[in-house]
Amino acid sequence: MFEIKTRDGLARIGIFKTKHGIINTPALLPVINPHLMILEAEEMVKMGAQAFITNSYIIYSDEELRKRALKEGVHSILGFNGPVMTDSGSFQMYMYGISLPPLEMVRFQRDIGSDMGTIVDIFSENADYKEAEREVEETVRRARKSMKEKGDMMLACTVQGGIYPELRKKCARKLARLRAEIYPIGGVVPLMEKQKYADIAEIIIESKKELPPSRPVHLFGAGHPIIFPMAIALGCDLFDSASYIKYAKDDRMIFSDKTLRLAEMEESICNCPVCSSITIDELKEMEKEERIKRIAMHNLWQTFLEIKKVKQAIKQGNLWEVVEQRAYSHPSLLEAMEVIKENKKWLEEWENISKRRAFMYSGRYSIHRPIAYRLQKRIMERYESFFDKSVVFEEMEKPYSRMEYLKKLEANCIVESPFGPIPLELDEIYPVAQSLFPWNIDMETYRESKKLCRRFYKNMEVVGVDEVGKKSKDFDLRKIRSVANYQFGKGAGDALFKGDIKVVKSRTTGKIRNVICNGKHVVSMRASDGFFTLKIEGGKRLHSFFPFPKMRVVVDDDASPFIREGKNVFAKFVIDACREIRPYDEVLIVNENDEFLGVGQCLLNRKEMLDFERGMAVKTREGIKDM
Amino acid sequence: MFEIKTRDGLARIGIFKTKHGIINTPALLPVINPHLMILEAEEMVKMGAQAFITNSYIIYSDEELRKRALKEGVHSILGFNGPVMTDSGSFQMYMYGISLPPLEMVRFQRDIGSDMGTIVDIFSENADYKEAEREVEETVRRARKSMKEKGDMMLACTVQGGIYPELRKKCARKLARLRAEIYPIGGVVPLMEKQKYADIAEIIIESKKELPPSRPVHLFGAGHPIIFPMAIALGCDLFDSASYIKYAKDDRMIFSDKTLRLAEMEESICNCPVCSSITIDELKEMEKEERIKRIAMHNLWQTFLEIKKVKQAIKQGNLWEVVEQRAYSHPSLLEAMEVIKENKKWLEEWENISKRRAFMYSGRYSIHRPIAYRLQKRIMERYESFFDKSVVFEEMEKPYSRMEYLKKLEANCIVESPFGPIPLELDEIYPVAQSLFPWNIDMETYRESKKLCRRFYKNMEVVGVDEVGKKSKDFDLRKIRSVANYQFGKGAGDALFKGDIKVVKSRTTGKIRNVICNGKHVVSMRASDGFFTLKIEGGKRLHSFFPFPKMRVVVDDDASPFIREGKNVFAKFVIDACREIRPYDEVLIVNENDEFLGVGQCLLNRKEMLDFERGMAVKTREGIKDM
Repeated sequence: MFEIKTRDGLARIGIFKTKHGIINTPALLPVINPHLMILEAEEMVKMGAQAFITNSYIIYSDEELRKRALKEGVHSILGFNGPVMTDSGSFQMYMYGISLPPLEMVRFQRDIGSDMGTIVDIFSENADYKEAEREVEETVRRARKSMKEKGDMMLACTVQGGIYPELRKKCARKLARLRAEIYPIGGVVPLMEKQKYADIAEIIIESKKELPPSRPVHLFGAGHPIIFPMAIALGCDLFDSASYIKYAKDDRMIFSDKTLRLAEMEESICNCPVCSSITIDELKEMEKEERIKRIAMHNLWQTFLEIKKVKQAIKQGNLWEVVEQRAYSHPSLLEAMEVIKENKKWLEEWENISKRRAFMYSGRYSIHRPIAYRLQKRIMERYESFFDKSVVFEEMEKPYSRMEYLKKLEANCIVESPFGPIPLELDEIYPVAQSLFPWNIDMETYRESKKLCRRFYKNMEVVGVDEVGKKSKDFDLRKIRSVANYQFGKGAGDALFKGDIKVVKSRTTGKIRNVICNGKHVVSMRASDGFFTLKIEGGKRLHSFFPFPKMRVVVDDDASPFIREGKNVFAKFVIDACREIRPYDEVLIVNENDEFLGVGQCLLNRKEMLDFERGMAVKTREGIKDM
Repeated sequence: MFEIKTRDGLARIGIFKTKHGIINTPALLPVINPHLMILEAEEMVKMGAQAFITNSYIIYSDEELRKRALKEGVHSILGFNGPVMTDSGSFQMYMYGISLPPLEMVRFQRDIGSDMGTIVDIFSENADYKEAEREVEETVRRARKSMKEKGDMMLACTVQGGIYPELRKKCARKLARLRAEIYPIGGVVPLMEKQKYADIAEIIIESKKELPPSRPVHLFGAGHPIIFPMAIALGCDLFDSASYIKYAKDDRMIFSDKTLRLAEMEESICNCPVCSSITIDELKEMEKEERIKRIAMHNLWQTFLEIKKVKQAIKQGNLWEVVEQRAYSHPSLLEAMEVIKENKKWLEEWENISKRRAFMYSGRYSIHRPIAYRLQKRIMERYESFFDKSVVFEEMEKPYSRMEYLKKLEANCIVESPFGPIPLELDEIYPVAQSLFPWNIDMETYRESKKLCRRFYKNMEVVGVDEVGKKSKDFDLRKIRSVANYQFGKGAGDALFKGDIKVVKSRTTGKIRNVICNGKHVVSMRASDGFFTLKIEGGKRLHSFFPFPKMRVVVDDDASPFIREGKNVFAKFVIDACREIRPYDEVLIVNENDEFLGVGQCLLNRKEMLDFERGMAVKTREGIKDM
């Protein structure tokens, strides 16, 4: 029911199908209180709402409303015929000590025709570890039973576990087995209110580590846009907002990075249809009820705007930049960056090979972005030096290889960039050439870079530029070898480029375009990110060089003929895949017997390919028809 | 003609009066091309335009238009009866090598009824120093002559000097003597285009150092909102924008921190009336002309929005926070922060004593904000220790003095905060108590703090907490002395608080409210920022203690009787003032014979008081009637 269309690491633009229509994710579901509809569903649809959430407990506990809902369905109550999610009343149970029959509530949601129901989970806020653990077990027990009662309603099984990362992880792992349709992360409202963003980041990360990637994750109760970039970058897909109305009742206006009291404003700082049609003074003088409505509308406009901005960033591939910039708007968000930094190894597993936009330095966390971490790691592990001696250079204008004399040095040329050491041969790959740093980088980035450089030089003999010859002529060959090793793994360069090698360059830019070996087109090089795309010949060479399952995506035998014809690989036909595959990597498509079927570019990593039931896993570039 | 209403350091909210009405600053003047009015003045007024700028050269060089302008006036040509500024064509001269008669152009602007005309200055872009120096001299010469021709038109004398700070400074100093009504800073368009924000910051700063503070400064040709927070924080008041239309013609949409090509957008990321009424796809499919109009409108909405946001920040006193956050959206803006940091000593002269909003850490430049610099400097220079021994503590919950046992230690208690050393007695003054740092401050802030601490301990005997007695009872007395010394200068504490001292505290908060000495109310302490407000008795004591001109604002003898009656001090009556006075400081108002007239809180520093011809300099709290 859920599939990914495009992504920026864990952040994804997806399509989520419900009985009442599609939700394009990431999405925000405004909360509607059936007792008090301050804004009509229709008005909110105009602002960008695709789906709504309402509380089944409120309907359930009002006899008249309950009867009507059972008769006409929840969609009729909300006056909306699109996707409707229902909450179970867990939060009310927690807040007001109400007791609800867990299974009865799930059946009720099913019976009123909710598209997405929610289990009655247990909200642990101030519970100690033992208590929270018991509550997690009870939540999981209820989820298990609820799955049997849900009928064709999609069910949201909420991850709980208080502020204990291990419990969150455990809860997520157990719930994952149920293969529910949605996985909310619950219990974050008090953390949002106290602006404990580091705790929220940790909870999301530990939950996401165990949740099935094929299911949308809903960050329950986090309706303030300040958290959206971070939460989405960590893999959340759905949000709900009661804040828009709660804040409005309190005369508070929501902005992407803050909340302001109406009283402290003299002039509007928003262009939304509300704010561009009336002044702040007019707003202040309105009748309370009318004012609440206007502020609620403003709040929703701002909230939806933030979702749109994040979607734009996902498409451009610069979401981490947005997350970091946002972090400087509140010290607590900076604390969350620390948690994210500590998880960069895990984040790298989901990170794209390259992005559309350049890597822009946005402060001391930029160097810890998953793509920077990968760059450092691969250079350490995969770069094979060509000479005995190495010469080190300060950072200079990019791409470094524009300096022709460097290419002729009979030494490994290493540039000390803010990313750490960059061998000259790798100066055009993403994000090296496509990066922008200020001259005044921060001290942590500087130190990290120096530390990486020192580690890199450990097994190298670093000499002065005057101590080496200047007649090397094979820079292009070194370059294609180095890029291949970096991109596909050690040894790939030798495996791909043997025989009579011809490097074809663009006449206008002088950049490498194609590599022909013994008359066969092996790879092309993308001008945009300096990486190779594999031709069938290149795929063949890597297939015979790398042992199974390296670089492979293994498809069901039934699907094999279609791949050979050049059809794309859908996730449901993937049987296995290499663990090292990263989104947008070049892959070898093989059948169950490791017969080479074609080459392509994947959208998903291994975990995703094996988990997703819908959507594309690999965009096939070329299949092998003959066989 | 210009007066300040409120301020945040050099950034000011002001009123600028013209023949055709008032401009509330900071303000953006959209450029109107009389040949091609894509948007009508009226439409732009609805978006927030208060005034427009048009190019007199365009009118001058079209015979028909020129005749009409001379006959009907420029306001009729633009269809706008509010303030109109005219540019002289300097930029066109530079770009297209056109030659214009400098004085003739000024007379022409005067004759067509421009409210604000501009001299024909010389734009030095790639000029070497010598050439730029000659051009500056010619610009100054023209300005001098133009001042005689301007009639009752206000004249804008543009500071030039290329990228040479010394030349900018020299040009500004010479032009300042002419007492023109407006001082534009010219020649920044190419720097904006190349995103050389550090150069722009330096040019503004060097110019502002010499320009009269009573004149609005116009940053010519900087119409992209990305620069507004920084430029306004450095003292710019006026901006013009042709960008809104230039970018629109190129299908580029302006956002506060970036520009996006229409082609790279799929969904709108803006709530303005244009973007909330049509989709990006609809926009893409429009006829070119209609599309330009819509994008131009969007661009203007975004541009005005940024001005509004900056005004909000000035009122809240958190503009530096906004500047720093914005800096993380482009590496070149971070480079500009380095220039700003180097000028913190100068910036401190214009900095408010305290702000409405807490000091929020926004990264490694926060510690270099003028108010943080002042805190460090004053603690170093003005704190008088009470004990021989000092005990040092790690940063803890604020205010530190909440820990009752600390107050009883018979030692100076020093807390190592990210700001540097904070003596316990000063823990409630702004921005100490009113600050928020994350636990993970950056390495530069950490080091800076440690360095300051080491310097502070130099002449102190630092011991362990167990080595000192714990029976001190006079914390309140120590506190009021320390705050007085910090706020007014060394010795102020002893001068203010002698005789029988009674410290009156709030029953609800326990905070110090008033200090009574020998039955006389000397000072009150503001709960919001921990500083004193002076009562007449306090003023008297400081007046006899501090020698002239310390803490004084000297007013014209004619104004003295009004001050005694409690009337405010207007800038034009100020004859002299103490150099150490900072905006929102408590001051002693005296006459030419240093007779004490009253106490008040100033809005301006000395340079401003002596320069401004309009507006309030000091809000008198109390005058001395008897005499």
